[in-house]
Amino acid sequence: MNKGQLTRQRIIEIAAPIFNQRGYEGCSIQDVMDATGLEKGGLYRHFSSKEDLAAEAFKYALGQAVKLRTSHLGHLEGSMAKLRYIVENFVTAPSPMAGGCPLMNTALDSYDGNPVLRKLAARGLRDWKKRICEIVKCGIDNGEIAPATEPSRVANMLIATLEGSLMISRMEGTRDALRHAQTTLESVLDSIEMITKPS
Amino acid sequence: MNKGQLTRQRIIEIAAPIFNQRGYEGCSIQDVMDATGLEKGGLYRHFSSKEDLAAEAFKYALGQAVKLRTSHLGHLEGSMAKLRYIVENFVTAPSPMAGGCPLMNTALDSYDGNPVLRKLAARGLRDWKKRICEIVKCGIDNGEIAPATEPSRVANMLIATLEGSLMISRMEGTRDALRHAQTTLESVLDSIEMITKPS
Repeated sequence: MNKGQLTRQRIIEIAAPIFNQRGYEGCSIQDVMDATGLEKGGLYRHFSSKEDLAAEAFKYALGQAVKLRTSHLGHLEGSMAKLRYIVENFVTAPSPMAGGCPLMNTALDSYDGNPVLRKLAARGLRDWKKRICEIVKCGIDNGEIAPATEPSRVANMLIATLEGSLMISRMEGTRDALRHAQTTLESVLDSIEMITKPS
Repeated sequence: MNKGQLTRQRIIEIAAPIFNQRGYEGCSIQDVMDATGLEKGGLYRHFSSKEDLAAEAFKYALGQAVKLRTSHLGHLEGSMAKLRYIVENFVTAPSPMAGGCPLMNTALDSYDGNPVLRKLAARGLRDWKKRICEIVKCGIDNGEIAPATEPSRVANMLIATLEGSLMISRMEGTRDALRHAQTTLESVLDSIEMITKPS
Protein backbone atom coordinates (compact mmCIF):
# COMPACT_ATOMS: atom_id res chain seq x y z
CA MET A 1 0.00 0.00 0.00
CA ASN A 2 1.27 3.49 -0.82
CA LYS A 3 0.62 6.47 1.45
CA GLY A 4 -2.62 7.41 -0.33
CA GLN A 5 -3.98 3.88 -0.01
CA LEU A 6 -3.01 3.77 3.66
CA THR A 7 -4.82 7.03 4.34
CA ARG A 8 -7.88 5.77 2.46
CA GLN A 9 -7.90 2.56 4.49
CA ARG A 10 -7.48 4.49 7.75
CA ILE A 11 -10.44 6.73 6.89
CA ILE A 12 -12.58 3.65 6.20
CA GLU A 13 -11.61 2.07 9.53
CA ILE A 14 -12.46 5.24 11.43
CA ALA A 15 -15.71 5.90 9.55
CA ALA A 16 -17.03 2.32 9.80
CA PRO A 17 -18.09 2.34 13.48
CA ILE A 18 -19.59 5.83 13.09
CA PHE A 19 -21.81 4.77 10.18
CA ASN A 20 -22.57 1.49 11.98
CA GLN A 21 -23.78 3.33 15.07
CA ARG A 22 -25.53 6.32 13.56
CA GLY A 23 -26.75 5.08 10.17
CA TYR A 24 -26.27 6.71 6.79
CA GLU A 25 -28.46 9.74 7.46
CA GLY A 26 -27.29 10.12 11.05
CA CYS A 27 -23.60 10.27 10.12
CA SER A 28 -22.45 13.45 8.42
CA ILE A 29 -19.27 14.14 6.52
CA GLN A 30 -18.52 16.60 9.33
CA ASP A 31 -18.61 13.67 11.82
CA VAL A 32 -16.02 11.83 9.71
CA MET A 33 -13.94 15.00 9.38
CA ASP A 34 -13.98 15.43 13.17
CA ALA A 35 -13.03 11.81 13.80
CA THR A 36 -10.24 11.69 11.21
CA GLY A 37 -8.97 15.24 11.63
CA LEU A 38 -9.13 15.67 7.84
CA GLU A 39 -10.64 18.56 5.92
CA LYS A 40 -13.46 17.97 3.46
CA GLY A 41 -11.03 18.21 0.53
CA GLY A 42 -8.83 15.59 2.16
CA LEU A 43 -11.76 13.17 2.41
CA TYR A 44 -13.03 13.76 -1.11
CA ARG A 45 -9.56 13.09 -2.49
CA HIS A 46 -10.16 9.46 -1.50
CA PHE A 47 -13.93 9.05 -1.96
CA SER A 48 -16.17 10.38 -4.68
CA SER A 49 -19.12 10.99 -2.34
CA LYS A 50 -20.54 10.31 1.13
CA GLU A 51 -22.30 7.30 -0.43
CA ASP A 52 -18.99 5.96 -1.72
CA LEU A 53 -17.40 6.31 1.73
CA ALA A 54 -20.44 4.74 3.45
CA ALA A 55 -20.33 1.80 1.03
CA GLU A 56 -16.63 1.17 1.72
CA ALA A 57 -17.23 1.57 5.48
CA PHE A 58 -20.04 -1.03 5.35
CA LYS A 59 -17.92 -3.48 3.33
CA TYR A 60 -15.13 -3.11 5.88
CA ALA A 61 -17.50 -3.52 8.87
CA LEU A 62 -19.16 -6.57 7.34
CA GLY A 63 -15.77 -8.07 6.47
CA GLN A 64 -14.68 -7.75 10.11
CA ALA A 65 -17.87 -9.45 11.30
CA VAL A 66 -17.61 -12.27 8.73
CA LYS A 67 -13.99 -12.84 9.75
CA LEU A 68 -14.93 -13.16 13.42
CA ARG A 69 -17.87 -15.46 12.66
CA THR A 70 -16.21 -17.77 10.13
CA SER A 71 -12.43 -17.90 10.64
CA HIS A 72 -12.59 -20.88 13.00
CA LEU A 73 -15.13 -22.88 10.95
CA GLY A 74 -12.48 -24.57 8.79
CA HIS A 75 -10.93 -26.16 11.88
CA LEU A 76 -14.13 -27.97 12.80
CA GLU A 77 -14.98 -31.47 11.70
CA GLY A 78 -18.53 -32.11 10.48
CA SER A 79 -21.54 -29.99 9.57
CA MET A 80 -23.34 -30.25 12.90
CA ALA A 81 -20.26 -29.00 14.78
CA LYS A 82 -20.06 -26.09 12.35
CA LEU A 83 -23.73 -25.14 12.71
CA ARG A 84 -23.51 -25.33 16.51
CA TYR A 85 -20.37 -23.18 16.41
CA ILE A 86 -22.14 -20.53 14.30
CA VAL A 87 -24.83 -20.25 16.98
CA GLU A 88 -22.39 -20.29 19.91
CA ASN A 89 -20.04 -17.76 18.34
CA PHE A 90 -22.84 -15.30 17.63
CA VAL A 91 -24.25 -15.66 21.14
CA THR A 92 -20.97 -15.40 23.02
CA ALA A 93 -18.72 -13.16 20.89
CA PRO A 94 -20.02 -9.59 20.57
CA SER A 95 -19.89 -7.79 17.24
CA PRO A 96 -16.33 -6.62 16.53
CA MET A 97 -17.69 -3.22 15.50
CA ALA A 98 -19.22 -0.62 17.84
CA GLY A 99 -22.94 -0.33 17.09
CA GLY A 100 -23.74 -4.04 16.75
CA CYS A 101 -24.26 -6.19 13.67
CA PRO A 102 -23.46 -4.13 10.53
CA LEU A 103 -25.71 -6.34 8.38
CA MET A 104 -28.85 -5.79 10.46
CA ASN A 105 -28.10 -2.10 11.00
CA THR A 106 -27.56 -1.42 7.32
CA ALA A 107 -30.49 -3.61 6.27
CA LEU A 108 -32.93 -1.71 8.47
CA ASP A 109 -31.31 1.64 7.70
CA SER A 110 -31.46 1.21 3.93
CA TYR A 111 -34.87 -0.44 3.32
CA ASP A 112 -36.36 2.86 2.39
CA GLY A 113 -33.07 4.68 2.11
CA ASN A 114 -29.83 4.42 0.19
CA PRO A 115 -30.05 1.90 -2.70
CA VAL A 116 -26.28 1.25 -2.87
CA LEU A 117 -26.20 0.26 0.81
CA ARG A 118 -29.39 -1.76 0.41
CA LYS A 119 -27.77 -3.76 -2.40
CA LEU A 120 -24.62 -4.37 -0.36
CA ALA A 121 -26.65 -5.48 2.67
CA ALA A 122 -28.72 -7.84 0.49
CA ARG A 123 -25.52 -9.32 -0.90
CA GLY A 124 -24.15 -9.75 2.65
CA LEU A 125 -27.30 -11.63 3.65
CA ARG A 126 -27.17 -13.79 0.50
CA ASP A 127 -23.55 -14.75 1.21
CA TRP A 128 -24.33 -15.62 4.84
CA LYS A 129 -27.28 -17.79 3.81
CA LYS A 130 -25.16 -19.46 1.14
CA ARG A 131 -22.45 -20.37 3.67
CA ILE A 132 -25.02 -22.00 5.99
CA CYS A 133 -26.83 -23.77 3.11
CA GLU A 134 -23.54 -25.28 1.94
CA ILE A 135 -22.78 -26.62 5.43
CA VAL A 136 -26.28 -28.16 5.62
CA LYS A 137 -26.01 -29.69 2.13
CA CYS A 138 -22.63 -31.16 2.99
CA GLY A 139 -24.15 -32.64 6.18
CA ILE A 140 -26.98 -34.21 4.17
CA ASP A 141 -24.49 -35.66 1.68
CA ASN A 142 -22.32 -37.23 4.37
CA GLY A 143 -25.29 -38.62 6.33
CA GLU A 144 -24.98 -36.31 9.35
CA ILE A 145 -28.19 -34.39 8.65
CA ALA A 146 -31.65 -35.77 7.84
CA PRO A 147 -32.09 -35.82 4.03
CA ALA A 148 -35.50 -34.10 4.17
CA THR A 149 -33.92 -30.99 5.73
CA GLU A 150 -34.38 -27.85 3.66
CA PRO A 151 -31.05 -25.95 3.75
CA SER A 152 -32.60 -22.52 3.22
CA ARG A 153 -35.03 -23.07 6.11
CA VAL A 154 -32.12 -23.81 8.44
CA ALA A 155 -30.26 -20.73 7.17
CA ASN A 156 -33.28 -18.45 7.56
CA MET A 157 -34.01 -19.83 11.02
CA LEU A 158 -30.49 -19.38 12.35
CA ILE A 159 -30.04 -15.88 10.94
CA ALA A 160 -33.52 -14.63 11.88
CA THR A 161 -33.36 -15.92 15.44
CA LEU A 162 -29.80 -14.74 16.08
CA GLU A 163 -30.35 -11.26 14.63
CA GLY A 164 -33.73 -10.85 16.33
CA SER A 165 -32.25 -11.95 19.67
CA LEU A 166 -29.37 -9.55 19.29
CA MET A 167 -31.90 -6.76 18.77
CA ILE A 168 -33.74 -7.72 21.99
CA SER A 169 -30.50 -8.16 23.94
CA ARG A 170 -29.25 -4.73 22.95
CA MET A 171 -32.56 -3.09 23.85
CA GLU A 172 -32.67 -4.80 27.22
CA GLY A 173 -28.99 -4.44 27.98
CA THR A 174 -28.76 -8.13 28.98
CA ARG A 175 -27.74 -11.26 27.08
CA ASP A 176 -30.87 -13.21 28.14
CA ALA A 177 -32.47 -13.20 24.69
CA LEU A 178 -29.27 -14.43 23.05
CA ARG A 179 -28.96 -17.24 25.60
CA HIS A 180 -32.60 -18.18 25.03
CA ALA A 181 -31.93 -18.24 21.29
CA GLN A 182 -29.00 -20.57 21.80
CA THR A 183 -31.10 -23.04 23.81
CA THR A 184 -33.88 -23.08 21.24
CA LEU A 185 -31.60 -23.22 18.20
CA GLU A 186 -29.69 -26.14 19.74
CA SER A 187 -33.01 -28.03 19.91
CA VAL A 188 -33.77 -27.09 16.31
CA LEU A 189 -30.33 -28.37 15.27
CA ASP A 190 -30.79 -31.56 17.32
CA SER A 191 -33.99 -32.16 15.38
CA ILE A 192 -32.23 -32.23 12.00
CA GLU A 193 -29.32 -34.42 13.12
CA MET A 194 -29.32 -38.06 12.07
CA ILE A 195 -29.18 -40.08 15.29
CA THR A 196 -27.46 -43.05 13.73
CA LYS A 197 -24.90 -42.21 11.12
CA PRO A 198 -24.80 -44.63 8.18
CA SER A 199 -21.68 -46.77 8.33
CA MET B 1 -61.60 16.60 19.82
CA ASN B 2 -61.48 20.29 19.03
CA LYS B 3 -60.00 21.63 15.79
CA GLY B 4 -56.50 22.00 17.27
CA GLN B 5 -56.53 18.43 18.56
CA LEU B 6 -57.78 17.16 15.20
CA THR B 7 -54.96 18.95 13.38
CA ARG B 8 -52.42 17.58 15.85
CA GLN B 9 -53.73 14.05 15.38
CA ARG B 10 -53.68 14.43 11.59
CA ILE B 11 -50.04 15.60 11.66
CA ILE B 12 -49.12 12.54 13.76
CA GLU B 13 -50.87 10.20 11.32
CA ILE B 14 -49.07 11.74 8.34
CA ALA B 15 -45.67 11.91 10.04
CA ALA B 16 -45.76 8.34 11.43
CA PRO B 17 -45.06 6.45 8.17
CA ILE B 18 -42.39 8.99 7.18
CA PHE B 19 -40.47 8.51 10.45
CA ASN B 20 -41.07 4.74 10.24
CA GLN B 21 -39.56 4.57 6.78
CA ARG B 22 -36.72 7.07 7.05
CA GLY B 23 -35.77 6.98 10.74
CA TYR B 24 -35.35 9.93 13.07
CA GLU B 25 -32.27 11.40 11.40
CA GLY B 26 -33.52 10.63 7.90
CA CYS B 27 -36.82 12.47 8.37
CA SER B 28 -36.59 16.26 8.48
CA ILE B 29 -39.16 18.77 9.67
CA GLN B 30 -39.19 19.91 6.02
CA ASP B 31 -40.36 16.40 5.00
CA VAL B 32 -43.27 16.67 7.46
CA MET B 33 -44.03 20.21 6.26
CA ASP B 34 -44.12 18.98 2.65
CA ALA B 35 -46.38 16.03 3.52
CA THR B 36 -48.80 18.00 5.68
CA GLY B 37 -48.74 21.26 3.72
CA LEU B 38 -48.14 23.12 6.99
CA GLU B 39 -45.54 25.80 7.65
CA LYS B 40 -42.92 25.32 10.36
CA GLY B 41 -44.84 27.62 12.71
CA GLY B 42 -47.98 25.56 12.15
CA LEU B 43 -46.16 22.38 13.16
CA TYR B 44 -44.48 23.86 16.20
CA ARG B 45 -47.83 25.13 17.45
CA HIS B 46 -48.66 21.47 18.11
CA PHE B 47 -45.27 19.96 19.01
CA SER B 48 -42.47 21.41 21.11
CA SER B 49 -39.72 19.87 18.97
CA LYS B 50 -38.91 17.36 16.24
CA GLU B 51 -38.24 14.86 19.04
CA ASP B 52 -41.70 15.48 20.49
CA LEU B 53 -43.31 14.89 17.08
CA ALA B 54 -41.20 11.77 16.44
CA ALA B 55 -42.17 10.37 19.84
CA GLU B 56 -45.89 10.89 19.17
CA ALA B 57 -45.49 9.44 15.66
CA PHE B 58 -43.82 6.32 17.09
CA LYS B 59 -46.50 5.88 19.76
CA TYR B 60 -49.16 6.12 17.06
CA ALA B 61 -47.35 3.68 14.72
CA LEU B 62 -46.78 1.17 17.52
CA GLY B 63 -50.40 1.51 18.63
CA GLN B 64 -51.60 0.66 15.13
CA ALA B 65 -49.34 -2.41 15.03
CA VAL B 66 -50.39 -3.61 18.49
CA LYS B 67 -54.05 -3.19 17.52
CA LEU B 68 -53.58 -5.33 14.40
CA ARG B 69 -51.62 -7.99 16.29
CA THR B 70 -53.81 -8.27 19.40
CA SER B 71 -57.39 -7.22 18.68
CA HIS B 72 -58.51 -10.76 17.80
CA LEU B 73 -56.71 -12.48 20.71
CA GLY B 74 -59.61 -12.02 23.13
CA HIS B 75 -61.88 -14.07 20.87
CA LEU B 76 -59.62 -17.13 21.04
CA GLU B 77 -60.00 -19.90 23.58
CA GLY B 78 -56.83 -21.20 25.25
CA SER B 79 -53.19 -20.15 25.43
CA MET B 80 -51.90 -22.41 22.66
CA ALA B 81 -54.46 -21.03 20.20
CA LYS B 82 -53.40 -17.51 21.17
CA LEU B 83 -49.68 -18.20 20.75
CA ARG B 84 -50.26 -19.85 17.37
CA TYR B 85 -52.40 -16.90 16.31
CA ILE B 86 -49.63 -14.44 17.25
CA VAL B 87 -47.24 -16.29 14.92
CA GLU B 88 -49.76 -16.67 12.10
CA ASN B 89 -50.91 -13.06 12.28
CA PHE B 90 -47.35 -11.71 12.14
CA VAL B 91 -46.46 -13.98 9.21
CA THR B 92 -49.57 -13.37 7.13
CA ALA B 93 -50.68 -9.80 7.95
CA PRO B 94 -48.17 -7.15 6.86
CA SER B 95 -47.36 -4.22 9.13
CA PRO B 96 -50.19 -1.66 8.98
CA MET B 97 -47.61 1.11 8.62
CA ALA B 98 -45.44 1.75 5.55
CA GLY B 99 -41.82 0.96 6.40
CA GLY B 100 -42.38 -2.29 8.32
CA CYS B 101 -42.43 -2.98 12.05
CA PRO B 102 -42.17 0.32 13.97
CA LEU B 103 -40.71 -1.43 17.01
CA MET B 104 -37.75 -2.98 15.15
CA ASN B 105 -37.17 0.17 13.08
CA THR B 106 -37.12 2.45 16.09
CA ALA B 107 -35.10 0.00 18.19
CA LEU B 108 -32.34 -0.20 15.58
CA ASP B 109 -32.56 3.49 14.78
CA SER B 110 -32.26 4.64 18.38
CA TYR B 111 -29.65 2.29 19.91
CA ASP B 112 -26.98 4.90 19.48
CA GLY B 113 -29.37 7.72 18.70
CA ASN B 114 -32.33 9.47 20.29
CA PRO B 115 -32.79 8.49 23.97
CA VAL B 116 -36.51 9.39 24.08
CA LEU B 117 -37.25 7.06 21.16
CA ARG B 118 -34.99 4.37 22.63
CA LYS B 119 -36.97 4.47 25.87
CA LEU B 120 -40.29 4.25 24.01
CA ALA B 121 -39.06 1.32 21.90
CA ALA B 122 -37.81 -0.48 25.02
CA ARG B 123 -41.21 0.00 26.64
CA GLY B 124 -42.92 -1.34 23.50
CA LEU B 125 -40.75 -4.45 23.63
CA ARG B 126 -41.38 -4.90 27.36
CA ASP B 127 -45.15 -4.69 26.82
CA TRP B 128 -45.04 -7.21 23.97
CA LYS B 129 -43.00 -9.65 26.04
CA LYS B 130 -45.35 -9.17 28.98
CA ARG B 131 -48.41 -10.01 26.85
CA ILE B 132 -46.79 -13.25 25.64
CA CYS B 133 -45.52 -14.20 29.13
CA GLU B 134 -49.03 -13.77 30.55
CA ILE B 135 -50.50 -16.06 27.89
CA VAL B 136 -47.82 -18.70 28.63
CA LYS B 137 -48.34 -18.42 32.42
CA CYS B 138 -52.07 -18.78 31.96
CA GLY B 139 -51.45 -21.90 29.81
CA ILE B 140 -49.24 -23.39 32.51
CA ASP B 141 -51.87 -22.67 35.17
CA ASN B 142 -54.66 -24.32 33.20
CA GLY B 143 -52.57 -27.37 32.25
CA GLU B 144 -52.27 -26.57 28.55
CA ILE B 145 -48.55 -25.83 28.63
CA ALA B 146 -45.75 -27.90 30.23
CA PRO B 147 -45.05 -26.53 33.73
CA ALA B 148 -41.27 -26.36 33.17
CA THR B 149 -41.76 -23.86 30.34
CA GLU B 150 -40.02 -20.54 30.95
CA PRO B 151 -42.43 -17.80 29.80
CA SER B 152 -39.71 -15.26 28.98
CA ARG B 153 -37.91 -17.81 26.80
CA VAL B 154 -41.07 -18.34 24.75
CA ALA B 155 -41.56 -14.58 24.47
CA ASN B 156 -37.97 -13.92 23.41
CA MET B 157 -38.08 -16.77 20.91
CA LEU B 158 -41.30 -15.68 19.23
CA ILE B 159 -40.33 -12.02 19.03
CA ALA B 160 -36.72 -12.62 17.93
CA THR B 161 -37.64 -15.12 15.23
CA LEU B 162 -40.56 -13.12 13.88
CA GLU B 163 -38.68 -9.82 13.78
CA GLY B 164 -35.53 -11.40 12.34
CA SER B 165 -37.57 -13.17 9.66
CA LEU B 166 -39.35 -9.97 8.77
CA MET B 167 -35.95 -8.34 8.27
CA ILE B 168 -34.85 -11.14 5.92
CA SER B 169 -38.17 -11.15 4.06
CA ARG B 170 -38.00 -7.42 3.44
CA MET B 171 -34.42 -7.62 2.21
CA GLU B 172 -35.22 -10.50 -0.12
CA GLY B 173 -38.57 -9.19 -1.27
CA THR B 174 -40.19 -12.60 -0.64
CA ARG B 175 -42.12 -14.05 2.28
CA ASP B 176 -40.02 -17.25 2.40
CA ALA B 177 -38.22 -16.39 5.64
CA LEU B 178 -41.51 -15.57 7.38
CA ARG B 179 -43.03 -18.86 6.21
CA HIS B 180 -39.94 -20.75 7.43
CA ALA B 181 -40.27 -18.97 10.78
CA GLN B 182 -43.89 -20.07 11.02
CA THR B 183 -43.00 -23.74 10.42
CA THR B 184 -40.21 -23.71 12.99
CA LEU B 185 -42.13 -21.73 15.61
CA GLU B 186 -45.08 -24.12 15.28
CA SER B 187 -42.70 -26.96 16.18
CA VAL B 188 -41.36 -24.95 19.12
CA LEU B 189 -44.93 -24.34 20.31
CA ASP B 190 -45.82 -28.03 19.81
CA SER B 191 -42.89 -28.89 22.08
CA ILE B 192 -44.29 -26.89 25.04
CA GLU B 193 -47.88 -28.13 24.68
CA MET B 194 -49.11 -30.73 27.16
CA ILE B 195 -50.27 -33.67 25.09
CA THR B 196 -52.82 -34.89 27.60
CA LYS B 197 -54.66 -32.21 29.46
CA PRO B 198 -55.36 -33.01 33.11
CA SER B 199 -59.05 -33.66 33.62
